[in-house]
Amino acid sequence: MPQLDFWYAIGSTYAYLTIMRINDLAEQGGVRVRWRPFDVRAIMTEQNNIPFRDKPLKAAYMWRDIERRAEKYGLRTRLPAPYPIDNLPLANQVAILAMREGWGIHYTMETYRIWFQDGLPPGEDPNLSEAIFRCDRDPMAVIERARTPEYAAALAAETDAARAAGLFGAPTFTVDGELFWGDDRLEDALNWARFGHV
Amino acid sequence: MPQLDFWYAIGSTYAYLTIMRINDLAEQGGVRVRWRPFDVRAIMTEQNNIPFRDKPLKAAYMWRDIERRAEKYGLRTRLPAPYPIDNLPLANQVAILAMREGWGIHYTMETYRIWFQDGLPPGEDPNLSEAIFRCDRDPMAVIERARTPEYAAALAAETDAARAAGLFGAPTFTVDGELFWGDDRLEDALNWARFGHV
Repeated sequence: MPQLDFWYAIGSTYAYLTIMRINDLAEQGGVRVRWRPFDVRAIMTEQNNIPFRDKPLKAAYMWRDIERRAEKYGLRTRLPAPYPIDNLPLANQVAILAMREGWGIHYTMETYRIWFQDGLPPGEDPNLSEAIFRCDRDPMAVIERARTPEYAAALAAETDAARAAGLFGAPTFTVDGELFWGDDRLEDALNWARFGHV
Repeated sequence: MPQLDFWYAIGSTYAYLTIMRINDLAEQGGVRVRWRPFDVRAIMTEQNNIPFRDKPLKAAYMWRDIERRAEKYGLRTRLPAPYPIDNLPLANQVAILAMREGWGIHYTMETYRIWFQDGLPPGEDPNLSEAIFRCDRDPMAVIERARTPEYAAALAAETDAARAAGLFGAPTFTVDGELFWGDDRLEDALNWARFGHV
């Protein structure tokens, strides 16, 4: 079965469009997807890659572009959502913990729903506990474990792997040595996994 | 007839994909396109928007992404093409002159063919004269006129118009107050012109 790695960070805005679409598209195409949360901000800071913070026109466009595309995909939004978020590492450490236990995709989708549809930032309450609760887990217990050095190290290891794979942003898809950056390359990446071309 | 403005600068890399596709797509969709060359570099410099110069990973990805997409669209490439180009204003002043005389689209397409398929940078010889020659014009006479203050002012005026329209990069499409940035938004922009949604 063809497969691809889906690299994302809770904290990336365009990832909303991917997170809400990728499972359906991958299933239709018969592609297995490995969801890999990492700390995109650490990598972008290292690379002096600052797309929005000091660029108000680009930032305003980004929200409008996401809004239009979300509508095309039938996704609800209340934009602009809070950005940038303050607690990117914790949001993604919970994601890694949840992935290991098999509820990481559900947690990620709920986190983005609460962020992009209800306007509450990830990685802090009420979003954090509510997203965990919706996955039928105990928020306090999960958050306490996710804060331990074990999960800080796990996030750092995945960030190292992303760096080694040549990533410079998120969402990114890697398949057979090819890298595809951006939600608008999701279809290209799935085609590559299936057919070896975009 | 629905219409959109296609803002580009000879010097933009992703514009290659648009320049070779937009006429066919617009004709299929019944959309009138106004080609508007401007000085994107002036605007991006003002906005501290430097996507590639100090970002080698992003630059390498850009070429690979263009290569894959060009193949999908049946376009030949020899990449990486020379970049950035040294003579962006002259290349685009000739484009404005040629647009006024009705051969600007042909000139732009030939310029990009020579740049992206033969590896010769726009705005200087041999690319510049060859592109003009392929449009059945006298290269020396055209270049002499395009260098005059009249065409420097015309390029500045179009760049002012682009700035006023909120542009921050190229290619960009504007239609009914909506702005779409990037070759990968060409279909969205055409849809907006036709249907009012992406």
